[in-house]
Amino acid sequence: MKAPAPVAVVGASGYSGEELVRLLLAHRHAELVAVTSRQYAGQTLAQVFPRFASDPRAQKLRFSEPNAELLARAAHVVFLALPHGVAAEYALPLLRHGCVVIDLSADFRLRNAAVYKEFYGQDHPAPELLGKAVYGLPEVYREALRGASLVAAPGCYPTGILLPLIPLLRAGLIRPDAIIADALSGVTGAGRKAEPDYLFAECNESLRPYSIPKHRHLSEIEQELSLAAGRAVVIQFTPHLVPVNRGILTTLYLAPAVPFKDAAGASAFANQIADCYRAAYAGEPFVRLLEGKALPDTKNVVGTNFIELAWRLDPRTGRLLVMSAQDNLIKGASGQAIQCFNLVCGLAETAGLL
Amino acid sequence: MKAPAPVAVVGASGYSGEELVRLLLAHRHAELVAVTSRQYAGQTLAQVFPRFASDPRAQKLRFSEPNAELLARAAHVVFLALPHGVAAEYALPLLRHGCVVIDLSADFRLRNAAVYKEFYGQDHPAPELLGKAVYGLPEVYREALRGASLVAAPGCYPTGILLPLIPLLRAGLIRPDAIIADALSGVTGAGRKAEPDYLFAECNESLRPYSIPKHRHLSEIEQELSLAAGRAVVIQFTPHLVPVNRGILTTLYLAPAVPFKDAAGASAFANQIADCYRAAYAGEPFVRLLEGKALPDTKNVVGTNFIELAWRLDPRTGRLLVMSAQDNLIKGASGQAIQCFNLVCGLAETAGLL
Amino acid sequence: MKAPAPVAVVGASGYSGEELVRLLLAHRHAELVAVTSRQYAGQTLAQVFPRFASDPRAQKLRFSEPNAELLARAAHVVFLALPHGVAAEYALPLLRHGCVVIDLSADFRLRNAAVYKEFYGQDHPAPELLGKAVYGLPEVYREALRGASLVAAPGCYPTGILLPLIPLLRAGLIRPDAIIADALSGVTGAGRKAEPDYLFAECNESLRPYSIPKHRHLSEIEQELSLAAGRAVVIQFTPHLVPVNRGILTTLYLAPAVPFKDAAGASAFANQIADCYRAAYAGEPFVRLLEGKALPDTKNVVGTNFIELAWRLDPRTGRLLVMSAQDNLIKGASGQAIQCFNLVCGLAETAGLL
Amino acid sequence: MKAPAPVAVVGASGYSGEELVRLLLAHRHAELVAVTSRQYAGQTLAQVFPRFASDPRAQKLRFSEPNAELLARAAHVVFLALPHGVAAEYALPLLRHGCVVIDLSADFRLRNAAVYKEFYGQDHPAPELLGKAVYGLPEVYREALRGASLVAAPGCYPTGILLPLIPLLRAGLIRPDAIIADALSGVTGAGRKAEPDYLFAECNESLRPYSIPKHRHLSEIEQELSLAAGRAVVIQFTPHLVPVNRGILTTLYLAPAVPFKDAAGASAFANQIADCYRAAYAGEPFVRLLEGKALPDTKNVVGTNFIELAWRLDPRTGRLLVMSAQDNLIKGASGQAIQCFNLVCGLAETAGLL
Repeated sequence: MKAPAPVAVVGASGYSGEELVRLLLAHRHAELVAVTSRQYAGQTLAQVFPRFASDPRAQKLRFSEPNAELLARAAHVVFLALPHGVAAEYALPLLRHGCVVIDLSADFRLRNAAVYKEFYGQDHPAPELLGKAVYGLPEVYREALRGASLVAAPGCYPTGILLPLIPLLRAGLIRPDAIIADALSGVTGAGRKAEPDYLFAECNESLRPYSIPKHRHLSEIEQELSLAAGRAVVIQFTPHLVPVNRGILTTLYLAPAVPFKDAAGASAFANQIADCYRAAYAGEPFVRLLEGKALPDTKNVVGTNFIELAWRLDPRTGRLLVMSAQDNLIKGASGQAIQCFNLVCGLAETAGLL
Repeated sequence: MKAPAPVAVVGASGYSGEELVRLLLAHRHAELVAVTSRQYAGQTLAQVFPRFASDPRAQKLRFSEPNAELLARAAHVVFLALPHGVAAEYALPLLRHGCVVIDLSADFRLRNAAVYKEFYGQDHPAPELLGKAVYGLPEVYREALRGASLVAAPGCYPTGILLPLIPLLRAGLIRPDAIIADALSGVTGAGRKAEPDYLFAECNESLRPYSIPKHRHLSEIEQELSLAAGRAVVIQFTPHLVPVNRGILTTLYLAPAVPFKDAAGASAFANQIADCYRAAYAGEPFVRLLEGKALPDTKNVVGTNFIELAWRLDPRTGRLLVMSAQDNLIKGASGQAIQCFNLVCGLAETAGLL
Repeated sequence: MKAPAPVAVVGASGYSGEELVRLLLAHRHAELVAVTSRQYAGQTLAQVFPRFASDPRAQKLRFSEPNAELLARAAHVVFLALPHGVAAEYALPLLRHGCVVIDLSADFRLRNAAVYKEFYGQDHPAPELLGKAVYGLPEVYREALRGASLVAAPGCYPTGILLPLIPLLRAGLIRPDAIIADALSGVTGAGRKAEPDYLFAECNESLRPYSIPKHRHLSEIEQELSLAAGRAVVIQFTPHLVPVNRGILTTLYLAPAVPFKDAAGASAFANQIADCYRAAYAGEPFVRLLEGKALPDTKNVVGTNFIELAWRLDPRTGRLLVMSAQDNLIKGASGQAIQCFNLVCGLAETAGLL
Repeated sequence: MKAPAPVAVVGASGYSGEELVRLLLAHRHAELVAVTSRQYAGQTLAQVFPRFASDPRAQKLRFSEPNAELLARAAHVVFLALPHGVAAEYALPLLRHGCVVIDLSADFRLRNAAVYKEFYGQDHPAPELLGKAVYGLPEVYREALRGASLVAAPGCYPTGILLPLIPLLRAGLIRPDAIIADALSGVTGAGRKAEPDYLFAECNESLRPYSIPKHRHLSEIEQELSLAAGRAVVIQFTPHLVPVNRGILTTLYLAPAVPFKDAAGASAFANQIADCYRAAYAGEPFVRLLEGKALPDTKNVVGTNFIELAWRLDPRTGRLLVMSAQDNLIKGASGQAIQCFNLVCGLAETAGLL
């Protein structure tokens, strides 16, 4: 067994950062050597996160101020769990010092700096790196991730939308111009921000859409769908905030590329869908194709790196419905980042995740 | 002031029945003279529902076995909060005895007994009454409801879908063949059924679609949309179960009847939508058209008979999004039934509801 | 019918303030003429609280900066829903201008400025008023409240502890030196404070004690218990934060003044307790004594001004257990303030509350 | 490394059974060879529990009808997750066939068949086994558990009460006749029973005590406390149902054996408590003694086998408060059963639990 890779987490005080720490402490091929947080500098992991308090490593490891040079000396792989805009600034010196950077922000997800500016409202802080980053969706970019030095881990919503759609678009089975994604997200998706909108009594017993019609994640979603379809794709996307801690449930409304005319046509199309998904995902360790009457339920995947997928053909409307369920902080963020880490480091892709 | 109308609730032990009782006890123009329940016969309202226990009327009124003749003698208006199939059997003798019947089940919502059989899996128990019933959506059938003797109160999902759509279809502003309704419902929507699926630990921290692609409520939704559109309408409808006690949030994905080509076209279409909704609902006591940046949130309507409505035009996709929020047990069931009761009895429509 | 009293709410943007507004808008003998909030000055009630948006009065009434002189000119009764320390400053000029002040903060609950300093960590801003204020627990101070000019509405926890205990202490039935109060509170009890501890994901799926062993509310609780017992009373009080929006459930562990020796003694003591509570509360409009096997449940009182009470004698330990359930924002705050308002104004005590 | 022990779970369809299955599938020294369930016989683990569906073993392993002989042939250790009364019947033949039995029911927790009858309302089905069973609290019975053939895993409430109290009673630091335990439990504690009381809408936004004053768990709690104290102990115990899936928060109200008289006495007593807990638990792998200002919070232990403990001395009342937090299904049931399994089998006590 190889020596564990020394790793650091920059910005470890948010929900994704905390989840990364949890996964890395349990990972046999990673050794967490540094965690940074302006807010908690000087305190131990055990003090800041009581759930880790019984781990001797958490009792010893102290949050430090982020310092690229020191981090680069101590760690081989650095995870950035920082707000967009800030992450890029840290990435540059880390890369220069030879670190592998796995960024959980939006900063390296887009290939086009102009799209970044359109959706994030500011100039990209390091456009020269955009071509270098690999989008961290292992089911799509597995080969490029092996040996990558800069990984842009996808957003939580994109994961639940891209995994169901990319195989269908690649196979030309659905119309790329008629995609609707309706998603429900737990409140950790908003981060650990002390804003009134996310107070318990404002979220509990509340159901609400938000950020419509142009949520920021559309930029990366449409980029990746366009690559899969071989043409520009624009979709409808509506996120909703619902009172669970974790989980995203996505319902996709799709139109077959060629409308089916009768029961036989429907049946043939259904077979194509089944084959397409089986070909794409039967061997994937973290994609669970549901069978029979089962439909996705976030409670079956929360706490895991799995994404559940099911689909139905509606003979009345001619539409294809695809639904996915995932844990927004794991397959939608930190678990997927670990999956990328495993690929980058040449480890078993499921290491630390099963 | 007229003497209060004597009213009865048959099947008062479910969530809609309980909510009806609550509303009727607070209604100055209704006198609750009988409540029936096989399960609780002999017990007082105060014993079965502790929240009413301090009301002297609840201490006196006892649940009885349902008996049409006795009910008809005591009550002028009878609310049926019974499962479908059962309600129709009770309605017949009550109507024969001269009662007004306000039925909260699905039994009288459809005009066509064959559609009933298709969606409810059994022959309609009283098809001869289907032509007599008025669909209890006051914003649409106000005039017919005045003086009606048989009212079919709409389902919870239909209310949140029909109110946003009917004005647009009547005005020909949207394509009737491209309607998608995605809805989230609180768990009381499933009734007070002791089934494992609705246990706390199965619903809490869970998000899941169900009954797709052909939920029973589609039958009444499509019937009413077809009437509004003047042609047969088939829609896509996906309900989801989410962990709140009450509330339905509906997101509608719509296509303009005539696609707009540019910003000017979009702006003109937006004005048409705004005018259409204003014309339909500015004077409606229970429809709240949101303005500015506000979006529907169930927490703003839970406990009330209001439905919130907002819409957005998406210039990127050309679609119109309409969202509604309501309390599934009030505007989606018992409050709406009271609104019908007020109309039937010639009372102020808002009596007992503000 | 008398003309409605013009009333104002100062600090109307928190949860108690919002609930006061809701109750006052529905109160037939009150006319809400002013609401103040530094944060929302200039906006209408309808804009700040969407749930009131359909009320024409909420569309017209705008939040203003608090100004005692203007308030005093417009309103006869002013409710203060401000943080402690701040409330007293506003009360003084309002009283001088002849207003009745109903204060929901802790500023006038204590008779002793030194105790205020001990528990609230600052000098009392207006100690000369302490003797003038009436503690707003109608079941105890009803007569003093009629015609009072300064009312100190009790805290949420005190209400659920004092109502069960005062009759027992007055009757000498329990030992005043062996009282333990264990309480569970919903998250609105913490106010609408944007602090990480009250974020949805920090409260949901969390159970935790806090502020032990010396919560601030002990000061008023012990003051009132001492008055009832005729001697100094010190109690044990442990609050817990639990994931509900509203509701306080209190469990009291008590020792009979004279330990019972056998079943006959227990039975005699039980009769004394039953008689004591019946004498104290059988005629009270908002105290619900549960009978038979029923135990308090916050869901039966949330949304109402009722408090539920039940007790059990434990023959194994010789202890008396008393439990109460209330809505922390209604009987624990704003509803009780309205009850006081009704008494102050000579209205029916239940006006606007049933 | 030894070959994994073949194990079976009888009654694997409830919440504890499911959690046992989860822990055993992840346990490197256990091989799950059989799961039984009358209800699900014939179905695979993957079909019944979608969260395990991606595990190839769950796809293969089918629920069977429970049959002692077959189980004994296949498994070396059998976990019983059955209702009380039923478990004992299965234990006898399994033991006769040479299996180790780890029972999660109440059937073998009591040493006295008469107490069983008093609290469980039926004659004990196998009183001859009572003397043979070891109470499965490793922190107390570690040595006896090594090599035990019949283990009675404790109830969820007892774990959270006994671990804080036993060291104090053994050291004679508290009065054994003045113990009050107030506990809050998540809804999985009631099992997967389809009863109206545990429906989502009945538990959500509800706080309620139940089973007072004589909950069944008192029998085992008092048995173990009596053994620790060396005299008969009777305590006060009040469980409450609160809306979380998992977690028990216990607050204990205790009286020092010798009341302290002044600050110096309090300080000396505090040192004794600190020393006592440190001596008892500093080396325990699953007991987390909180330090400084930290108080237990179920969210820090849910999903783990840890129990958090903190205490406070109240100088005002002279009482000692001790609080504990645990996951009712793990340290309160299945995790603790695994800890026992590890001891029984001579494995590292933390195997499969960290």
